[in-house]
Amino acid sequence: MRNIVTFYVTYLMCLFLGITCVVLVSHWNYSYRGGFAWDGSNKHFNWHPVLMVTGMVVLYGNAAIVYRVPLTWGQNKLPWKLLHAGLLLLSLIMSVTGLCAVFDYHNTNHINNLYSLHSWIGICTAALFTAQWVIGFTAFLLPWTPMGVRSLVKPGHVWMGAIILVLSIVSCISGINEKLFFALKANTNGTLPYSMLPPEAVLANSLGVIIVAFGLVVLKILSNQVWQRPEPAEDEEVYRPLAYDGS
Amino acid sequence: MRNIVTFYVTYLMCLFLGITCVVLVSHWNYSYRGGFAWDGSNKHFNWHPVLMVTGMVVLYGNAAIVYRVPLTWGQNKLPWKLLHAGLLLLSLIMSVTGLCAVFDYHNTNHINNLYSLHSWIGICTAALFTAQWVIGFTAFLLPWTPMGVRSLVKPGHVWMGAIILVLSIVSCISGINEKLFFALKANTNGTLPYSMLPPEAVLANSLGVIIVAFGLVVLKILSNQVWQRPEPAEDEEVYRPLAYDGS
Repeated sequence: MRNIVTFYVTYLMCLFLGITCVVLVSHWNYSYRGGFAWDGSNKHFNWHPVLMVTGMVVLYGNAAIVYRVPLTWGQNKLPWKLLHAGLLLLSLIMSVTGLCAVFDYHNTNHINNLYSLHSWIGICTAALFTAQWVIGFTAFLLPWTPMGVRSLVKPGHVWMGAIILVLSIVSCISGINEKLFFALKANTNGTLPYSMLPPEAVLANSLGVIIVAFGLVVLKILSNQVWQRPEPAEDEEVYRPLAYDGS
Repeated sequence: MRNIVTFYVTYLMCLFLGITCVVLVSHWNYSYRGGFAWDGSNKHFNWHPVLMVTGMVVLYGNAAIVYRVPLTWGQNKLPWKLLHAGLLLLSLIMSVTGLCAVFDYHNTNHINNLYSLHSWIGICTAALFTAQWVIGFTAFLLPWTPMGVRSLVKPGHVWMGAIILVLSIVSCISGINEKLFFALKANTNGTLPYSMLPPEAVLANSLGVIIVAFGLVVLKILSNQVWQRPEPAEDEEVYRPLAYDGS
């Protein structure tokens, strides 16, 4: 009982930090960076941080811990599998759209793509995420995948899921840091430089700290073995195609 | 047996990646950034990346996995505890010296301290590392700490150890990215800008990728339960002060 209360307190903290991340990244880009458009301007770029933080960190993190919610344990696993896969597909679509935003912006403004360390780590993270989703779909949702393959893939899937979140956070922090050095320069439109910590810098730095805090809470939930969904013992487990999956 | 072979292959990979990180960060700062000095110049700053990558990532990561080496399992734990604590103390001293390098450089050149997101995450990581070392020393090496306290502290110590490595990597990647944007500007001493990916950029980006790979291998070793040092069952465990610790 105490474990369940601790879980829900941690879960609420995760939801609160996630919502704060989305609010802060949107507020930063709307109020300080000029808002949003899809026209090749700076406003086009602004979709990049918003979609990456919302999709690849907040939505991804929440999707990763779906099975850890004790409320779902007594129930048929299939709807929660579909929710897990569905949320991650939405997260993947948002991430790819976020990548399109920065590539389009660069191409329109004749800026090279994929030169910074941020972009190298970020593109590897997105590629790993895509592979993870496809492998996860093939192994756990296609009805003809044998249970043996599912059991074999599962530990790697769980571990890689956590690692992709870590890499997303590495990408976000290096990206926010880079953006602030680009955007906050002395004598440009009367803005204070980054080194003088104007309000925008405090806001975006705080966003970075809260992204890290969100990631640590999700990793804490994932690593606590007491919070893992109890699975039937291996000999009780029967191969069930998608349509009849009652595990 | 197969597990032990897999461990040593992974361990060798970890050593190889760690050594590569130290070689690359030293080569970058020696050959491209002008080398080392302690005189307030750019050469003074160059100690910062070298000491942080060597101390807070490579030495730290290797110290974290000392207990995972099967060779040590049949032996008295105390020498390995002292090696773990000693390597981490050396890592902490190198990290603090690396921080002194950047603070001294900033102060000499009238540059503000602790304004970037990189510095916020980095200083929090160093503070957590210091707290972790002091708590670890108090809980596991002071002879008068009761076994009950050790058992209570251990899971948190192991988890926080992994998290500090993740935060160190976040700090390193954002720092290398930031340094390359500072250092590689068009028309400065004839250097190509970062966006043209001159050899220095490829070298330092590769360093970043290898730091991430090193971190993932260490996290893999830490997370594999088969590779954990077998501990005596709780009822066999006896309170032993430091000098007689045979556990």
